[in-house]
Amino acid sequence: MKVNGTHYRSLWWDDDKAALQIIDQRWLPHEFRIQQVDTLQDFADAIVEMRVRGAPLIGATAAYGMALAAKIDPSNAHLDTAWEFLDKTRPTAINLRWALNRCRAHLLPLPEADRPAAALKLAHEISDEDVGINHSIGQNGLEIIRKIAAGKKDGEPVRILTHCNAGWIATVDWGTATSPMYQAHDAGIPIHVWVDETRPRNQGALTSWELGSHGIPHTYITDNAGGHLMQHGLVDMVIVGTDRTTRRGDVCNKIGTYLKALAAKANNVPFYVALPSPTIDWTVDDGVAEIPIEERQEREVTHIQGLTDDGKIGVVQVTPVGTPGGNPAFDVTPNHLVTGLITERGVCEASAEGLAALFPDLSGIAKSA
Amino acid sequence: MKVNGTHYRSLWWDDDKAALQIIDQRWLPHEFRIQQVDTLQDFADAIVEMRVRGAPLIGATAAYGMALAAKIDPSNAHLDTAWEFLDKTRPTAINLRWALNRCRAHLLPLPEADRPAAALKLAHEISDEDVGINHSIGQNGLEIIRKIAAGKKDGEPVRILTHCNAGWIATVDWGTATSPMYQAHDAGIPIHVWVDETRPRNQGALTSWELGSHGIPHTYITDNAGGHLMQHGLVDMVIVGTDRTTRRGDVCNKIGTYLKALAAKANNVPFYVALPSPTIDWTVDDGVAEIPIEERQEREVTHIQGLTDDGKIGVVQVTPVGTPGGNPAFDVTPNHLVTGLITERGVCEASAEGLAALFPDLSGIAKSA
Repeated sequence: MKVNGTHYRSLWWDDDKAALQIIDQRWLPHEFRIQQVDTLQDFADAIVEMRVRGAPLIGATAAYGMALAAKIDPSNAHLDTAWEFLDKTRPTAINLRWALNRCRAHLLPLPEADRPAAALKLAHEISDEDVGINHSIGQNGLEIIRKIAAGKKDGEPVRILTHCNAGWIATVDWGTATSPMYQAHDAGIPIHVWVDETRPRNQGALTSWELGSHGIPHTYITDNAGGHLMQHGLVDMVIVGTDRTTRRGDVCNKIGTYLKALAAKANNVPFYVALPSPTIDWTVDDGVAEIPIEERQEREVTHIQGLTDDGKIGVVQVTPVGTPGGNPAFDVTPNHLVTGLITERGVCEASAEGLAALFPDLSGIAKSA
Repeated sequence: MKVNGTHYRSLWWDDDKAALQIIDQRWLPHEFRIQQVDTLQDFADAIVEMRVRGAPLIGATAAYGMALAAKIDPSNAHLDTAWEFLDKTRPTAINLRWALNRCRAHLLPLPEADRPAAALKLAHEISDEDVGINHSIGQNGLEIIRKIAAGKKDGEPVRILTHCNAGWIATVDWGTATSPMYQAHDAGIPIHVWVDETRPRNQGALTSWELGSHGIPHTYITDNAGGHLMQHGLVDMVIVGTDRTTRRGDVCNKIGTYLKALAAKANNVPFYVALPSPTIDWTVDDGVAEIPIEERQEREVTHIQGLTDDGKIGVVQVTPVGTPGGNPAFDVTPNHLVTGLITERGVCEASAEGLAALFPDLSGIAKSA
């Protein structure tokens, strides 16, 4: 999407330099830094240090890493070494291994001489696929926004609340939850986005940066504010992303999503989840009972990063020294609180039946199978 | 309660200096600073800038403000001017106007010469009353905690979630929501407190500071975490304070309280509100419809104060420069989400009938009257 009027993806191939370019997201939203990724160590660092973040983006980055590996030395032995080296950068990121496996499986049958070009072509394809999926999610979400807009007086914006950053910088482009917003805005439908801060990591600041860069009106609010806004009729719909959606439509997403879903239900605000089909876990039914929730480090809760008065990036401790902090990173929203799932194939009910109807080819990977 | 082993109230009169002393809470939990309040402008600043905060403490502070006004010029005209000047400092805290009205009503019938001494005596009385009320709230809440503790295996703590700081520094002493906690702890009942961070002003850091100073086990969590904790059976009860409770038991409290009440209801967690009777607004029924919500400055949301690496108090900006911030400071929890109101006279249902039964002498000030 646009940054200072120029269209960017979160990563892109520079033909002249024959190298991958990424946005180093550690400095966002305060600084927009582009970095060239030249070595396999650079790729590993980019993923480990979260210069790139978001499952789809990590997968695409890894595919370019395999392309570099094939260019350096296309032998089976070297591709295996590169696979292992990149795979260990984020052991829990499912898309990472998915992309690495896909690259290796594609390259090994080919003559070594053909591998470098094929590997680069595949990395481009994986990136483009992600863009395509997210664009389709946006098209499907756009129709929901269009219907709500039709009920508005002329010029009144559709007011959308979102939580965390399921934006274009967490994918190759468009984002998931944000894709309908960008497409509505580009289609001339006035929208206004309530951006949840999303403590403890304040990804709302990233979402604000994205939306601001693209010219979409928005307001940054604390995670506490959404219930009040819904109670007073100031939210027309909620759209969030998800890290994992179960077979029956329970939604695991950034901590605090569940509270917004409860408030939406209590106030008759439609609550939508935007998701690419690879984030559906067909082996899990009951998200609350079955999905283990990652407990992250205390320091994320007790300390906050931002821009200091002198324009540098600094950290302050909010709590008294020594205060214990609890940091569950995700929660699960039960399917009955979800109005609909916005996927690349269409919008469905958050239920086993709804998902199976859209994805008959995938839902066969059943828990009971 | 105690700070470094010494007992403090949140404000106190210094006879030698003939002036009010307050704890300047803007520097807590990182620095413990005492300030003398000398002029009416000082009083207004102390309330507006939240050097003193919390409905009961604001009320007591305002009473000393009226005492100063009477000392400067005890005429009816000047008392009226002071009333208006102090009344506009905070729109939501019902105690502010309650205290101002009580002072004016007490002073106007007296000869002007008697007013300065009478005003100071009344301010002392209002402070002492607050301490007594909060102690009684603690005794009544203690019985609820005791019953929950009786159902626990030996040594297992009662896990209490609280939002914001309804602690001793939000009152003259004991606090409201914290008073049952202090008294349970002092009675030897093991408790563990989940302390909501309470963005944007992070009053959870104040609550952590209070509880830590008193030796009560607690964990500081983001406002997003409570729903997840309740969903997984990790919260036995919620106790929060209130800035204003309506005649029928709707509860206006710090923004985000409503989301916790929704989560408590959905997960069968008892949700209690601790309140001194002066915070009941007998003239209001429907809190959501009738209570205006204070919109505070954006900077509270976009910037965060804390302790920097070099041990100084500093501020960082979390959002991109220029991002608009929304900052509704309170929300209203409808009475049907409230398990009970813990008052100085006992615990009642959150309803017009419940409150009228406990306060037949006060409930006559009806809206319809």
